Amino acid sequence: MKSIKVGLLGIGTVGAGTFNVLKRNQEEISRRAGRGIEIVMVADLDVARAKELVGAQCEVVKDGNLVVNNPDIDIVIELIGGYGIAKDLVLKAIANGKHVVTANKALLAIHGDEIFKAAQDKGVMVAYEAAVAGGIPIIKALREGLTANRIEWIAGIINGTTNFILSEMRDKGLDFDTVLKEAQRLGYAEADPTFDIEGVDAAHKATLMAAIAFGIPVQFDKAHVEGITKLEAVDIRYAEQLGYRIKLLGIAKRTPQGIELRVHPTLIPTKRLIANVEGAMNAVLVQGDAVGATLYYGKGAGAEPTASAVIADLVDITRLADADPAHRVPHLAFQPHAMTDTPILPISEVTTSYYLRMPVADEVGVLAKVTSILAESTISIDAMLQKEPAPGETQTDIIMLTHQTQEKNVEAAIKKIEALSTVLGKVTKIRLEHLS
Amino acid sequence: MKSIKVGLLGIGTVGAGTFNVLKRNQEEISRRAGRGIEIVMVADLDVARAKELVGAQCEVVKDGNLVVNNPDIDIVIELIGGYGIAKDLVLKAIANGKHVVTANKALLAIHGDEIFKAAQDKGVMVAYEAAVAGGIPIIKALREGLTANRIEWIAGIINGTTNFILSEMRDKGLDFDTVLKEAQRLGYAEADPTFDIEGVDAAHKATLMAAIAFGIPVQFDKAHVEGITKLEAVDIRYAEQLGYRIKLLGIAKRTPQGIELRVHPTLIPTKRLIANVEGAMNAVLVQGDAVGATLYYGKGAGAEPTASAVIADLVDITRLADADPAHRVPHLAFQPHAMTDTPILPISEVTTSYYLRMPVADEVGVLAKVTSILAESTISIDAMLQKEPAPGETQTDIIMLTHQTQEKNVEAAIKKIEALSTVLGKVTKIRLEHLS
Repeated sequence: MKSIKVGLLGIGTVGAGTFNVLKRNQEEISRRAGRGIEIVMVADLDVARAKELVGAQCEVVKDGNLVVNNPDIDIVIELIGGYGIAKDLVLKAIANGKHVVTANKALLAIHGDEIFKAAQDKGVMVAYEAAVAGGIPIIKALREGLTANRIEWIAGIINGTTNFILSEMRDKGLDFDTVLKEAQRLGYAEADPTFDIEGVDAAHKATLMAAIAFGIPVQFDKAHVEGITKLEAVDIRYAEQLGYRIKLLGIAKRTPQGIELRVHPTLIPTKRLIANVEGAMNAVLVQGDAVGATLYYGKGAGAEPTASAVIADLVDITRLADADPAHRVPHLAFQPHAMTDTPILPISEVTTSYYLRMPVADEVGVLAKVTSILAESTISIDAMLQKEPAPGETQTDIIMLTHQTQEKNVEAAIKKIEALSTVLGKVTKIRLEHLS
Repeated sequence: MKSIKVGLLGIGTVGAGTFNVLKRNQEEISRRAGRGIEIVMVADLDVARAKELVGAQCEVVKDGNLVVNNPDIDIVIELIGGYGIAKDLVLKAIANGKHVVTANKALLAIHGDEIFKAAQDKGVMVAYEAAVAGGIPIIKALREGLTANRIEWIAGIINGTTNFILSEMRDKGLDFDTVLKEAQRLGYAEADPTFDIEGVDAAHKATLMAAIAFGIPVQFDKAHVEGITKLEAVDIRYAEQLGYRIKLLGIAKRTPQGIELRVHPTLIPTKRLIANVEGAMNAVLVQGDAVGATLYYGKGAGAEPTASAVIADLVDITRLADADPAHRVPHLAFQPHAMTDTPILPISEVTTSYYLRMPVADEVGVLAKVTSILAESTISIDAMLQKEPAPGETQTDIIMLTHQTQEKNVEAAIKKIEALSTVLGKVTKIRLEHLS
């Protein structure tokens, strides 16, 4: 059987990784796929560098349109990134009847519905395993491995940059800015790290996972997004003393009121396996009603781990390229006619537990006032930590862990606490999940 | 589209779980699969109990032949277990052109080649996600999620009973027999626990994983199988002091000389995520050349976790039931014509590290003699622990961790060490893997 022909848009780190792995493991991959998979055309603005990477056997062009319009090409891999030209070329490829593989979470989290609709109408596949958690086959697990389950919730460490920073902050007791600089020096954070450290990248991925877990449209604009830039070393330390570790989690949860879709720093019990995922590694914990909790762990970024996911998609498509679309897994796991419009809850309606740190005057009665405000708000306290003031200091910290309550309830209580004369500054609030 | 019709052979724990989950999540599952999946006939020796479980809407028969010969049935689920009647019925179902889902690792590890060949010839699917690690979609990850990779090795905690026992032995400092009784009382170990505690069950699963990872035939008879029955509490304690935890691992490794396929108690560094998989949980660590290490964790047994895997297979088959076989994933991940006959190495040819404990007389010079034997055998020492003898005792333990060497080399050295007059008993040998 002749090889399937692939065109590659963008040959940066992941593109080069894909090209190299496909070449290196060509034999192993064809033994599985039943036919060869061959990149025949590459488009990249830096034609000279691209030519150097791919050698003479593969055509290199500057204009991506030449790839998506090439009648010899069956599958287009989009590794350009962003929503501009990438979106344009993906839609053109689909219109031309080509299958698409993409690692572009931003594109899919924002324009996924439009792209999947176009693919559906045209009868082609758009595969995106590489868009979430790099080389970990989490999209496959959610779309296929756990189909028996009503998925209850997903909680993932899905951004390696922030997990590296948090691991370093905890390990070495350093503050955010210092560690960010180190991460940039080591290549774990980009020159402009905004998308990572502000939680946007994790929210793109959580949005995609929520869609395929619950059968809802892709709705990035409804996600609550909080990064780690305001996280202080002192809270990491207090959390540790209370038996918790702080991770940036992407959370998607089904509740009777609607779907929670949120990214924020989260305290999780240190004894959970996922709490021990350190450095730039990723892990996704999925709770299904039949299977219980399953966890998927691995490298969430990097040239070859991401290439591993891109190529897995290529093999899947190679198998089903000329099959009846009914034989394929639906783009968003659920049949297009079977999607639901369960609402995504605003953060004020979310129910979770909380870590609260308040700087207080070292005076009699302050604790009584705080606890009575919480009691009035029907917020019950799960654990408390009060530090002795340092010698000569008149200020100290009270740390409280609450049981589950609604966010707006906690916000109202915090306002009242901050109005107390014995509370000497803002209350720090970090959400807490038991993940059990 | 009308429902796909399923026949169920054996409605014990997993069968009942499958029936219940399929009923409870019928709507969610059809939203994914695109059509209903309906169990229309159940065969079980205990007809009365089966009738009670499934109600009036589903026919119950005593003879499994009525299921595999039923022309209305598209898929047969085999949950009888064992190699006798289960094999017979599976082959009959295949001969009748029915697809098969089975959780029967013993059957596939021993007769898999024959069964897959028959299915291949007949153009039907035999799916077995539930045969390895219960609800964890590890077969899907290996067969589809990691297709880009040359798999280098797999190491799995794939038997919940033994992991529960080892966790309890370590946690409570108890010996094997005591914990086994507790495990039986709690339902974590069967009345006849032989297959679990002797490593046979784990070896069945490791055999299947080796086949799909490396594209080799299923060869249970070549696996090296060692259980945990001889493991002593003292070694768990010493391992802990040296920074290691002892787990029963199923290991499949590709080496230039051949494939290693082995199940045995193994020291692994405590800091590895997989070392912290406790109780009856399962986890499989896979090393691929592109993706690096990925880990898959969850419940490896139980009614609904196993049902989760059975139903995922049902959904996969439902999608591809009437597709051209070329569109399907090959049974053993590699195309039948592309399998290799890479030999499986005997245990004497395996290369790994070792934990050695030797009871010695508390005399000058004993350590020198032991280390010189190891040096002569070119076995180098990575770490050592020598306990002070207890007051009034003249005997003590020396514990050594070696660097990598061949098993036969270690065996020869142990013979020489045991022949020393200052060595007062057998040397305890436990293999050690760094998993990095």
